[in-house]
Amino acid sequence: MSDFHLNNELDAWVYLNRVVEGASRHLAALLAAYPVEEVAHGVYHARDWIGPLGRQTASRRDWVRQDEDLAAAAAVGARLITAQDPEWPGEEFARAFGFFDNAAGDCPASFDAEAVAPHSLWVRGGNLRQAVQHSVALVGTRTMSRYGFEATQLLARDLCQHHFTVVSGGALGVDTTAHQQVLDSGGCTVAVAACGIDYPYPARNKPLFEGIATHGVLVSEYPPGTTPQRHRFLTRNRLVAALSAGTVVVEAAFRSGALNTANWAEALGKVVMAVPGPITGRGSVGCHLRIQEQRAQLVANAEQIRELLSPVGQVDAGEQFELDFGASPTQRLSRNELRVYDAVPPSAHAAGASAQDIARDAGLRLPLAIHLLVVLEKQQLIRRQGNVWVRDEGVD
Amino acid sequence: MSDFHLNNELDAWVYLNRVVEGASRHLAALLAAYPVEEVAHGVYHARDWIGPLGRQTASRRDWVRQDEDLAAAAAVGARLITAQDPEWPGEEFARAFGFFDNAAGDCPASFDAEAVAPHSLWVRGGNLRQAVQHSVALVGTRTMSRYGFEATQLLARDLCQHHFTVVSGGALGVDTTAHQQVLDSGGCTVAVAACGIDYPYPARNKPLFEGIATHGVLVSEYPPGTTPQRHRFLTRNRLVAALSAGTVVVEAAFRSGALNTANWAEALGKVVMAVPGPITGRGSVGCHLRIQEQRAQLVANAEQIRELLSPVGQVDAGEQFELDFGASPTQRLSRNELRVYDAVPPSAHAAGASAQDIARDAGLRLPLAIHLLVVLEKQQLIRRQGNVWVRDEGVD
Repeated sequence: MSDFHLNNELDAWVYLNRVVEGASRHLAALLAAYPVEEVAHGVYHARDWIGPLGRQTASRRDWVRQDEDLAAAAAVGARLITAQDPEWPGEEFARAFGFFDNAAGDCPASFDAEAVAPHSLWVRGGNLRQAVQHSVALVGTRTMSRYGFEATQLLARDLCQHHFTVVSGGALGVDTTAHQQVLDSGGCTVAVAACGIDYPYPARNKPLFEGIATHGVLVSEYPPGTTPQRHRFLTRNRLVAALSAGTVVVEAAFRSGALNTANWAEALGKVVMAVPGPITGRGSVGCHLRIQEQRAQLVANAEQIRELLSPVGQVDAGEQFELDFGASPTQRLSRNELRVYDAVPPSAHAAGASAQDIARDAGLRLPLAIHLLVVLEKQQLIRRQGNVWVRDEGVD
Repeated sequence: MSDFHLNNELDAWVYLNRVVEGASRHLAALLAAYPVEEVAHGVYHARDWIGPLGRQTASRRDWVRQDEDLAAAAAVGARLITAQDPEWPGEEFARAFGFFDNAAGDCPASFDAEAVAPHSLWVRGGNLRQAVQHSVALVGTRTMSRYGFEATQLLARDLCQHHFTVVSGGALGVDTTAHQQVLDSGGCTVAVAACGIDYPYPARNKPLFEGIATHGVLVSEYPPGTTPQRHRFLTRNRLVAALSAGTVVVEAAFRSGALNTANWAEALGKVVMAVPGPITGRGSVGCHLRIQEQRAQLVANAEQIRELLSPVGQVDAGEQFELDFGASPTQRLSRNELRVYDAVPPSAHAAGASAQDIARDAGLRLPLAIHLLVVLEKQQLIRRQGNVWVRDEGVD
């Protein structure tokens, strides 16, 4: 086992990407403490100090094939990117997964994957970070109806007009229609694969993936050659949600897998949206239920999506005029933002409140409340003090 | 003018129905204070004590034609009913209009008609009160799409299976489809006309109205021969909303007239519902907007309508088992009911709160808050004390 050799940091990342499937909280902790090459050596030699990661990698740690993986990736024009690369969407990942980092490993029980940012990603095509700067996920059923097809085309086309990047999962049905329509409209689309970046799945989408690699970005968390499996679809959904400011479920029947992406978007503090449809079929039952449960906002066109995803204070020119005169910062807040703002105690009166307390007080789900706290913090309307949040008197 | 003669009370009602168009708050006040025949004489002779009703009836008060009106009604098998008749849906009207009585004449500014119960109604067919005991309004656009047609049929048929009476306005499009489907399904339907009960409008619906008169109830607030006019449609909408526990907008484009019925249902404290539809057309834009504004609840089938209209505590057998063990009365409350309940001050701590205060505190629109206050009062969870509401400690 002493023949383990790493040419450089990239080699170490490729090795870890191979022997640790997907993202791991344990690996993240080690990478935060040690150089990546040291971690790779630690894993290969099964050192005690790698802790629970030892068990996690026991059956794979001697799977040393960096050269083969890099060659397979190069053959399809793919590269491995990490937090060291300028195109790494680190800010997006931090925002999405940040509060899970402080939550002692708590992850929604209904998720098959860990709520942790990826360590490295195989990508084909353009600059990932730029591509997802202004992005929205369009997801939905594989068994799409005629209506689902038309609704997806309509939204994808109009989102391109608003210069949104459309993120999706590359699956048949709604995903495929969304990607294809964006390419047809000359827009940018990001497909997150549930298999190796060199593995064309579904096979009939091979030409589509070539188009995405040319005009958008193809992304995979898994080493080359990895086959698609059920648990990988669920892990992939987390990246679709994380790489977009909001997720739109276009068509989803009762218990459709697309709702799993909505769950992730919700857990990651993203805007969750659903498209209504005919009640005369079963195709939109899942969308309607989410709207009824107030877990998704009804959206009927790209303009409404744009409005929901606009950062606080970023308004149209017409509205700007009005706001320039007299509007205080809090008057620009959305209703939910105001609920959170009001739930944050003034610094003079109390010792601050935890995100949990604020969420309960505002009557919002914790992920949404945290998302809004961060939004308000950016507006300098509130401050974080250790584990609690306060607002300064006189801001309003 | 001394030849004014009334044969009986009915004559007086018929006279007033003719000379006062629709419902009038001033007439209601007089009828609460004086016998109907005295009021009729007062109006005919333009007595000072009839107050503002004098101006309201100045151009019509010598329109004495009770015999002709009764004959025209009799010719189509219609009768005039009032609060004296056992089939008068007095309880429904009291619930719907009751809080406007105490609101110093306040009526939502966007309504063309007064928020006051009718004084008398021309009816054809069955017992009105029985017909509307368990009823829901299905309304929508006259320019119905194929989808609107199918959705209306689906809901009307399934509501019949749940033994709902379907109330609507007899107009073309969604109204006609709803009425017709109920007749085809062997159910009961109530049509509220915007013209005289003997005036078949729209003309092509004459056979439909005959069917409704045979198997349901046809209702009009206007004297025989009255032609349909725009303001009468808006007044009619208020009765459609008042005669049902909730209003479902099946298909309505932006600014569709059907949304006026939803406004009325909202103002009268009824449950407002809207059916989603394809975003690829414009037919459901009005429905989607109401759902987005949280002014209507999304419903996709009759079962969901039934659930929303079920009185508090009336649950399915399956749920009953669970509730029999351990659930306190407040645990059975819906989220909105709980919000209102929590906003009502305990009697020991405060002097009570007005409906306005409670609505603001609960973050609900006033009509909905009032509706829920009445619901909670029926459950004996709260009490009305004059103009304020309180709850007794220890109930929970």
